[in-house]
Amino acid sequence: MRTVEWDYAHHNVRLIDQRCLPGDFRVVTLESHLQVANAIREMIVRGAPAIGAAAAFGLALAAQESTAQDLQAFIEDLELAAAELEQSRPTAVNLTWAIWRVLKVVKSLAGANIDIGDVLALREATLAEAQKIADEDVEQNKKMAVFGASLIDDGDVIIHHCNTGALATVDWGTALGVIHTAHLQGKCLHVLVDETRPRLQGARLTAWELDQYGIPYDIITDNAAGYFLKAGMVNKVFVGADRVAANGDVVNKIGTYMLALAAFDNEVPFYSVVPTTTIDLSLASGDQIPIEERSESEVLNLSIDGSRVTPVDATGRNPAFDMTPNRLITAIVTNAGIAFPPYEESLKQVVAGINSDHPENS
Amino acid sequence: MRTVEWDYAHHNVRLIDQRCLPGDFRVVTLESHLQVANAIREMIVRGAPAIGAAAAFGLALAAQESTAQDLQAFIEDLELAAAELEQSRPTAVNLTWAIWRVLKVVKSLAGANIDIGDVLALREATLAEAQKIADEDVEQNKKMAVFGASLIDDGDVIIHHCNTGALATVDWGTALGVIHTAHLQGKCLHVLVDETRPRLQGARLTAWELDQYGIPYDIITDNAAGYFLKAGMVNKVFVGADRVAANGDVVNKIGTYMLALAAFDNEVPFYSVVPTTTIDLSLASGDQIPIEERSESEVLNLSIDGSRVTPVDATGRNPAFDMTPNRLITAIVTNAGIAFPPYEESLKQVVAGINSDHPENS
Repeated sequence: MRTVEWDYAHHNVRLIDQRCLPGDFRVVTLESHLQVANAIREMIVRGAPAIGAAAAFGLALAAQESTAQDLQAFIEDLELAAAELEQSRPTAVNLTWAIWRVLKVVKSLAGANIDIGDVLALREATLAEAQKIADEDVEQNKKMAVFGASLIDDGDVIIHHCNTGALATVDWGTALGVIHTAHLQGKCLHVLVDETRPRLQGARLTAWELDQYGIPYDIITDNAAGYFLKAGMVNKVFVGADRVAANGDVVNKIGTYMLALAAFDNEVPFYSVVPTTTIDLSLASGDQIPIEERSESEVLNLSIDGSRVTPVDATGRNPAFDMTPNRLITAIVTNAGIAFPPYEESLKQVVAGINSDHPENS
Repeated sequence: MRTVEWDYAHHNVRLIDQRCLPGDFRVVTLESHLQVANAIREMIVRGAPAIGAAAAFGLALAAQESTAQDLQAFIEDLELAAAELEQSRPTAVNLTWAIWRVLKVVKSLAGANIDIGDVLALREATLAEAQKIADEDVEQNKKMAVFGASLIDDGDVIIHHCNTGALATVDWGTALGVIHTAHLQGKCLHVLVDETRPRLQGARLTAWELDQYGIPYDIITDNAAGYFLKAGMVNKVFVGADRVAANGDVVNKIGTYMLALAAFDNEVPFYSVVPTTTIDLSLASGDQIPIEERSESEVLNLSIDGSRVTPVDATGRNPAFDMTPNRLITAIVTNAGIAFPPYEESLKQVVAGINSDHPENS
């Protein structure tokens, strides 16, 4: 199954519960848009593209929940649900983008003055647009995987941060999709998996996915990446992103900035892999991207050999993302080609669908 | 009690078991040098100065264990024990230094041709020298704390990595001793405590010590330090060291290098605090310092809410230290003064006991 999907038999949304992996493969069924908002907030589903698709399906649930008898009331119900979904997490732009895209289609149909009996048609249009977003995500991931794989050489050792695989998207993945594709092309790879504190998406999810794909890896603590980079044991670093600004600044999972500094200090190429939907040309620089701070309990709730690690009354801080300035990023891989610096120009081109560096043209 | 001490009533060594804190304050009694070597290897005692003192007391135990009837046999027993103790951990130079210092004193006494009946005198000399090392460590820590505290301003927010407090030394601490002393001087401070994966000395030990001292803190994941530095929320970074080369390259707990890169990128001063016994002038650069790689289980044995995080068959890599090049270090604080770049000159001076920057003279 896909990480996020619509169940056409039961008219609800199904998610792989990412909190339970790798110990337990559990599927969660969501029947209302508020349940979807909660699943995003609680990170039952996570990863910028996956939460975008989940929010779109959340609107399809809201459309189903609505008892409106006229177009105006239906649109109002959908807009209320959109606002609730949008508040679930602030950083990834895909969430806002997906909601905006569904609303736009539905409003344009409503604006076409179809009559009251057509609320049903709008309901169907909502679901159809959400499904389109989900399908396009998979298609885009496979495209960017081919672009990205062209950057990988046989024998490469790659550091990967967080989880950017099938589980972070509707399917296939962004940065991990690139690695998976290079592996399927027969390239021999070894991945150093940043465990990615505090929620350990690397140690839990990326390691689990690499196990499935048969790609050899070692889990490392995030703070050990610098050691391996400095020792000359790493050829490339691949990460995803939650939002990319017009100038190529990348906001991604906490720790990305320090990893990029260590890659830069050792002249190891550092790539961010994103669908064009993650690029936010409305923001000139990464400083304008809101950074979510999550509960301190995610930092403090750690135990080893069954005993709690931190003092009982300890306090913590828990920013979930950080901003990596464009000067540290070698290239940004997208479904529409690979963008190189200066990013102001190259990102505009990829968003417009122009391949700035198609491997088949190079 | 001290972190490491000789129990004169029972003729054995007592250690605070650092694996049990903060949940449990447990004292371990060691009756042989092999138990000491094991306690160092298993990190029941850790921190460069503390393992130096522990090894010295380990030799005092070996002297007690020895049934030698003549000086030659006694020295041989001690040398064998020294070799066993020295193998327990490779990176911190204090271990080698303390062992070498005790052996030197004992050999010089033996060389004075005292007669066979004086094996007892050598036994006493071994313990006396170990005790001297332990006492000097405390004295040196208090000196460097005053030098270091002169670098701290009222209102500073400080990032601290690993544990460098009383628990990492015989007493008082190195970098954390500096912070403690500044606090006692009435300076208002806030510490961001790097949790320090994989063994979480920050989240466990430093947080516990700060609790005791009444210094406010927040625990952060190691990979979040860059976020706070970039946000302009940090005034200084203080760390210890396990070995400092003649050129000022610092080998310290894994993660120090990435932290130093992030401090440097944001022009935040980065200080390493060490007793002169941690400075190894015999090595021209940090590249020559051996880096211990510990068991992958330290990375993989993590659990959250009672469930194991990593896939059952996951593999990991676990370097325990990394090397921070001198170009990233603002100053090295020692018991004999503060060394500034160029370190080749200033470290020679502090090791020779010359204060390159005594706060009272500045």
